[in-house]
Amino acid sequence: MTPFQLNDELLDRIGLLIDGQKNKKLKSLLAELHYADMAEIIDELSLERGVYLIKLVDSEKTSDVLTELDEDVREKILKELSAKEIAGELEELDTDDAADIIGELPEERQERVIAQISDESHAEDIRELLLYDENSAGGLMAKELVKVNENWTVLKCVREMRLQAEEVTRVHSIYVVDEKDKLVGRLSLKDLLNHPTKEPIKNVYIPKVDSVNVDENGEEVAKIMSKYDLEAIPVVDNNGVLMGRITIDDIVDLIKDEADKDYQMAAGISQDVEADDSIYDLTRARLPWLTLGLIGGLGSVFILEGFENIMTHPEFRSLFFFTPLIAAMAGNVGVQSSAIVVQGLANGVIKGSLFNLLVKEIGLSLINGLALSMLILVFGYFVNQPLNVSITIALSMQCVIVVAALVGTFVPIVLNKRGIDPAIATGPFITTSNDIFGIFLFFYIAKLILGF
Amino acid sequence: MTPFQLNDELLDRIGLLIDGQKNKKLKSLLAELHYADMAEIIDELSLERGVYLIKLVDSEKTSDVLTELDEDVREKILKELSAKEIAGELEELDTDDAADIIGELPEERQERVIAQISDESHAEDIRELLLYDENSAGGLMAKELVKVNENWTVLKCVREMRLQAEEVTRVHSIYVVDEKDKLVGRLSLKDLLNHPTKEPIKNVYIPKVDSVNVDENGEEVAKIMSKYDLEAIPVVDNNGVLMGRITIDDIVDLIKDEADKDYQMAAGISQDVEADDSIYDLTRARLPWLTLGLIGGLGSVFILEGFENIMTHPEFRSLFFFTPLIAAMAGNVGVQSSAIVVQGLANGVIKGSLFNLLVKEIGLSLINGLALSMLILVFGYFVNQPLNVSITIALSMQCVIVVAALVGTFVPIVLNKRGIDPAIATGPFITTSNDIFGIFLFFYIAKLILGF
Repeated sequence: MTPFQLNDELLDRIGLLIDGQKNKKLKSLLAELHYADMAEIIDELSLERGVYLIKLVDSEKTSDVLTELDEDVREKILKELSAKEIAGELEELDTDDAADIIGELPEERQERVIAQISDESHAEDIRELLLYDENSAGGLMAKELVKVNENWTVLKCVREMRLQAEEVTRVHSIYVVDEKDKLVGRLSLKDLLNHPTKEPIKNVYIPKVDSVNVDENGEEVAKIMSKYDLEAIPVVDNNGVLMGRITIDDIVDLIKDEADKDYQMAAGISQDVEADDSIYDLTRARLPWLTLGLIGGLGSVFILEGFENIMTHPEFRSLFFFTPLIAAMAGNVGVQSSAIVVQGLANGVIKGSLFNLLVKEIGLSLINGLALSMLILVFGYFVNQPLNVSITIALSMQCVIVVAALVGTFVPIVLNKRGIDPAIATGPFITTSNDIFGIFLFFYIAKLILGF
Repeated sequence: MTPFQLNDELLDRIGLLIDGQKNKKLKSLLAELHYADMAEIIDELSLERGVYLIKLVDSEKTSDVLTELDEDVREKILKELSAKEIAGELEELDTDDAADIIGELPEERQERVIAQISDESHAEDIRELLLYDENSAGGLMAKELVKVNENWTVLKCVREMRLQAEEVTRVHSIYVVDEKDKLVGRLSLKDLLNHPTKEPIKNVYIPKVDSVNVDENGEEVAKIMSKYDLEAIPVVDNNGVLMGRITIDDIVDLIKDEADKDYQMAAGISQDVEADDSIYDLTRARLPWLTLGLIGGLGSVFILEGFENIMTHPEFRSLFFFTPLIAAMAGNVGVQSSAIVVQGLANGVIKGSLFNLLVKEIGLSLINGLALSMLILVFGYFVNQPLNVSITIALSMQCVIVVAALVGTFVPIVLNKRGIDPAIATGPFITTSNDIFGIFLFFYIAKLILGF
């Protein structure tokens, strides 16, 4: 397949067709496109044109388009649709996608939209899903699934399954429940086909089935599903009653979102922004971290002021030329250490004691520091720097590197223990604190050695 | 489900059972565990004990365990197994997993192992898969799939499918091919069940099917599958002949690996390392970037030397206290800009012209810079800094921020255009070059304004 490529020509053509109200041509053009591609087009169109297309095309397709739109585009389009129109779209969607969209509406509008959904049980399911935390298994799951009672026969089971499967996009697994709707196992289609039709399901089903609790954290669910290569997992409440199921496509989205978030945090960008967001949104995401960096920078101004008298030393004042180098090394080492810890925590690699981790990090930074110190000495030799100054710089840099590595290791672990996302540590936070720390340490040690 | 928690107690128990050769107890203990959990255990055991378990338990399970092991643990264990033993494991695996494992063996061993695989067609399939680039669709795909000929009847189709399905862990889709094995469409199980048994498949199948070329880049496949919510995609050669299929679980792994790699690159860590890797591996991954940072730092030493005479100015020498601040701002702004561009490129959000992007980035950095300049002026007022010095610092910082943002935007775009992974730009590369650039600019502008 040649993946769909959005281009200006296509956008112009669609724009002209909309302005000329060539509905038939538009419909046949859009019928060729996947809903994800149609969403890409609407993301680029003006609001009026986007709304025009959503109203023009069947809900069967536009409902999926809505789920794929940029969040801010979707918000604007939903504002232009009536409660009844939105309900019409939601009726076509699985409960999890419908609940996600409704969840973005202002609260007073939510109930009005749900009230317009004609399928009462669909509406009930959506109401239930809205109760769960967005980031929990309950917030991720859909109510659509295929479930059979352990007391049924194979024949009844096949008949019921057919009915249920109508509602379910992808079956994945058939879940077996008892009289109280408790999840007791699963069925394979193969087993079903290989047993006589009068055999009770009790004798056929596989009693081993993985499930997650409805309150389980979404990231934990992602970890379980990817570790055990599951394409779907049933969700149960505290009594073991089958509540819904989570499918892998939602997990793929979650993994990507989490990765994007961690990457942005490491780069000093809070909130989920993209290159095509407004300057206002981008500023809100970036300015706080820059301000933190600035405050840290002002902190180092004070520290450097404390060593101002070195400037009168013609021999030692070159130490000041090394402040950006020291700050950079402290920052880089700190970010490396914290990134490894953050990933180790996320992937469950960090199991041993904090003590072992710190010892390893000290060893590592001693080795790295030693190699870099050599370079400093070589550099000093070539620029005719006094040897005692070179040695002083190399030694204090070595100390700065060890301390920076320890800070980089320690901070994310402490944050994690306190239930704060350790990813926040990587990036400006570590860089800024290590800048201040490193510069102070550098001059302090230099002062001790050189005795100025 | 309470996810499996590895603990020292369990490890000790297993260790004792191995040393006492209590094979029956070991087997029943391990039978309870998922293969992914057993892999976690072996990752922590000594090599001899790990090999003991692999040899003890049935290949049906241990083959899956092998795929889940840490790469370095797997390498060591495979060294301890004979070609015949490895072949025994590989026979239990899907062709894609088997090829991945064989691909890690030294080349002279690969053919010896394949020669020991008793199932000739399995061996042939693996040989074929080894020919493809690891990061291409061919390297990701498995040969196992369910395919039917368009000329068969529904009855023949169902019969053949049952046979084929034995070999395939998860069916996902039934692919339809013509006489020349060209992919022409797919079948839904529902349609199959709803048609008379004598109906030819020609009249039943859905002629629309997404596929990817065998040479397609793996990341591109991941993008397609996650965009279109596909759980499997067929792979075809240049003639449209069906070669294999890629399933979503491999894509989940790929997405996670890519995200980890990008995150590490942003933090200045090359190569794929984890917290529990050896100090040697970690040093190899970290030292090059630190060296780059050091060289950049030495560069700024030269630049600062050029402005040494300011130190004799009692009024202006405080500019030197601001070097870490300027370096931090230049670095932070650059990393933010490049991270947004890198993500935008990865997610396909950046479509407009480079010019528009740069104009936006200038606007953004002017706003951010203005806000931060205000803080500098307020700070200057409170520490009784001469107003002309404060204004100079604020103004030059503003320039540094704009230039840093432009560099951060420009570099990843240029790298991307040249086919280099733009993620390499974020992190130490941008930070280091912006440090040097920023410090030079800062002092140069200050010199112009203050005229020292």
